Amino acid sequence: MSAVRSFKKVLVANRGEIAMRILRTLKELGLPSAVLYHRQEVESPALTLADEAYEVFGDTPVSSYLDIPQIVELCKKHGVDAVHPGYGFLAENANFVRALDEAGVCFIGPRPEVMNLMGDKIGSRDFVAEHGFPIAPSVIDDGDEDKLIASIIEIGFPVLIKASAGGGGKGMQIVREAEGLRDIVATAKVEAQRYFGDPRVYAERYIESPRHIEVQVLGDEHGNCVHLWERECSIQRRFQKVIEETPSPALSPELRKDICESAVGIAKATNYTGAGTIEFIFSPNGEYYFLEMNTRIQVEHPITEMVTGVDLVAEQVRIAMGEPLSFKQEDIKQIGHAIECRICAEIPDDDFAPSAGKVLMLRPPVGEGMRFDSGSYEGQKVGTAFDSMIAKLIVHAEDRDAAIAKAGEALNEFVLLGVETNADYLGRLLRHPAFIAGETNTGFIKEHAADLGPDNIGDDLHTALLATAALSDRQFVAMMDEVPYPYRLMKEWRN
Amino acid sequence: MSAVRSFKKVLVANRGEIAMRILRTLKELGLPSAVLYHRQEVESPALTLADEAYEVFGDTPVSSYLDIPQIVELCKKHGVDAVHPGYGFLAENANFVRALDEAGVCFIGPRPEVMNLMGDKIGSRDFVAEHGFPIAPSVIDDGDEDKLIASIIEIGFPVLIKASAGGGGKGMQIVREAEGLRDIVATAKVEAQRYFGDPRVYAERYIESPRHIEVQVLGDEHGNCVHLWERECSIQRRFQKVIEETPSPALSPELRKDICESAVGIAKATNYTGAGTIEFIFSPNGEYYFLEMNTRIQVEHPITEMVTGVDLVAEQVRIAMGEPLSFKQEDIKQIGHAIECRICAEIPDDDFAPSAGKVLMLRPPVGEGMRFDSGSYEGQKVGTAFDSMIAKLIVHAEDRDAAIAKAGEALNEFVLLGVETNADYLGRLLRHPAFIAGETNTGFIKEHAADLGPDNIGDDLHTALLATAALSDRQFVAMMDEVPYPYRLMKEWRN
Repeated sequence: MSAVRSFKKVLVANRGEIAMRILRTLKELGLPSAVLYHRQEVESPALTLADEAYEVFGDTPVSSYLDIPQIVELCKKHGVDAVHPGYGFLAENANFVRALDEAGVCFIGPRPEVMNLMGDKIGSRDFVAEHGFPIAPSVIDDGDEDKLIASIIEIGFPVLIKASAGGGGKGMQIVREAEGLRDIVATAKVEAQRYFGDPRVYAERYIESPRHIEVQVLGDEHGNCVHLWERECSIQRRFQKVIEETPSPALSPELRKDICESAVGIAKATNYTGAGTIEFIFSPNGEYYFLEMNTRIQVEHPITEMVTGVDLVAEQVRIAMGEPLSFKQEDIKQIGHAIECRICAEIPDDDFAPSAGKVLMLRPPVGEGMRFDSGSYEGQKVGTAFDSMIAKLIVHAEDRDAAIAKAGEALNEFVLLGVETNADYLGRLLRHPAFIAGETNTGFIKEHAADLGPDNIGDDLHTALLATAALSDRQFVAMMDEVPYPYRLMKEWRN
Repeated sequence: MSAVRSFKKVLVANRGEIAMRILRTLKELGLPSAVLYHRQEVESPALTLADEAYEVFGDTPVSSYLDIPQIVELCKKHGVDAVHPGYGFLAENANFVRALDEAGVCFIGPRPEVMNLMGDKIGSRDFVAEHGFPIAPSVIDDGDEDKLIASIIEIGFPVLIKASAGGGGKGMQIVREAEGLRDIVATAKVEAQRYFGDPRVYAERYIESPRHIEVQVLGDEHGNCVHLWERECSIQRRFQKVIEETPSPALSPELRKDICESAVGIAKATNYTGAGTIEFIFSPNGEYYFLEMNTRIQVEHPITEMVTGVDLVAEQVRIAMGEPLSFKQEDIKQIGHAIECRICAEIPDDDFAPSAGKVLMLRPPVGEGMRFDSGSYEGQKVGTAFDSMIAKLIVHAEDRDAAIAKAGEALNEFVLLGVETNADYLGRLLRHPAFIAGETNTGFIKEHAADLGPDNIGDDLHTALLATAALSDRQFVAMMDEVPYPYRLMKEWRN
């Protein structure tokens, strides 16, 4: 397959685990690479992995990675001719793509028109409905607040209200009755304006106990578009995914085929180029509705890679070079079962409060069917400047039961000292009978909160035991004064 | 699929990486597990991973793992009803299987008669030839030394001479002329008696520049037998494999089908049960000859797992439980390309002399398509009591070029301080143009020795750089006095 373009230097405009992930593939493709860094991240292993690293400046660490003019200038200065945005930051910012276009730099992702179309909650739903694919009953905000409120009441409660321009879970809320609706809508509009610079909100019928099922697609410049099957991401807290798996335990072969073909249909209708994800809400009675499309690589993309054997980042790069897809739909099989657990610096038993500290010991799980994607390193100071996700633990096994067991095993072998994480909590989720039975929905964590508390001292002691076992005496003594968590338990265990 | 038997407790009669590998699968299968340990290995992570651990005693560490009565006694004492032998030690010892049989303990592997048949160099070749599969022209020692020598001369030189009862490379030699043949044979017989308790030797036509190609097979108690494609293991030093890959770059689809079907034919002829490997010698003109069968899991089994998605250890356990294979031949696809690099505690630039020391820092490579199988840990004292292989680095990518690049990348990211390893040397092998071109044969390392020396200071400096980058200042200072290698370079790099 011959490329229309080839790249001289590819900049990864991101940080952390996704920067590492992309840089590794660029190395394998033999492409010279560069990465951005804020001075807080000067010790990141991404800087060693990339051929070059460019410092970005800003009022806050996050704002430096969002500074379009500065990043475009760096591309010009250093001869960068392609940019991979990763996820988050500028990954779905059409202005960034246009600024790169003007500078003659290729954006590794879809065209800005498609990004804008699918990035707009209202516009994308209209588009999907017009092309004959299912959307949930909904109300679109045209500025007339009275009309909006009447329409919301008409489709019936519960109703989900969110900002039209917003992504992820920010500013979403469920309204269960007409009382107080006017105030809620007014507040939502103020927040939508504040967060996203656009006051429009939209409301849709809220499906009780739904699953979140999404489909990975890849489209090239030659009109080819395929799906790489689905991912179920129902285990969420505050609308943020925590555990993802593929295949979904909820889909029959017929429904799987149907939902995946719908996703390809939607992507084809946009002439989509690159990797994208069509998210659906899946009701307990087997209906599904378009939720949104993410026009970028997703956090949970590794589980798709595990079951299909396709390197999605390599495909993104090849598509951006103008290559046609090297496989057909029928070549892409779902082999086995994969699960991803997001390791976050947070304290689940304290309402998921963010945690901070210095990583003093890090032991990734290794072995058959295990994958660990992380940008963390021993000595890293974890703070709250960036997202709390510090690693992703991904497993692949022959079926769902084996994958659950393997994920539990991987969490047991994983050791991170110095910063409290949700690793034990993830283990509790995986061991929950309802999860094992595949009875998942997006309310799972709230619904089973009572069962998901700490097993008395069990989990912490287990962590302490593992950590202690992994430490030589010398290391143990050297570390005693430095480990805020769970050093007391370690000490007790030793004595 | 229902099991004929089920196990109450499975003992892994092994150590190091293969013990870890097997224990992880036992956990995933939900089977209670136990592992042996010698007191030198009391800090091994295998002891944490297993549910129980039993100390074995002996004059030397190795001899304790070979002590059949002691191990059988431990099984009886602790209610063990199945034993997985791993590779090496007692894995191909029919007496061990019989002793377990008598104690009512299931051996996870083939029946002892098959083990004996295929474990005998002469008998196995006869068997294979009788069933119509190709063997190299050879001479069999019937005790008459004059006749043996005449026959060797008849088949022509070069000739390979080895002990009939020996495995692996021990005592093998190539003879290129008739002069001195009588002395060589006499010495070989003495050595065969000393090493293997059987003075018989055999000789076969030595193929110049051959490849080593082997085929993984699985057979169940219900007469089903399938292959899981081939592995090429031509990169060897002193008859020990160093780098393995699958698929082999030497095979056309027709030849691949042919050699794999021959392997299944041979296994079926023995009514083989369990996982086994048929090794072939593959000549530059496309002929192949049966070399030997290994009636156990092999060191290089992970590359087969990577391309087929089958957990070979889980299959071994299921077969031992009496389950029929859950897949058919046509279900097993070769997807992508996998490479394994054996990380050994040795000094390649000093004629592969063994190295020793304490592991002070260990950073496994992680990420998409990377697997690291190891029993090593920080604080481990690596000596010469056991085999020098301390880890296996396995990668999986979409094609051979990508897999080579990924393996190079994995070696770059791998850090082990305190014990010198062959990691840099493995990188040199992977970067060699002849390896990249797929022009491999079992003489590769000797043939290209001049190109495989250290890149001046380059490799060591690279190691030092990586290690330094991975260390916080505090760790660095703490470690300065302890790291024998390559601390001087690290110090220079810092200054």
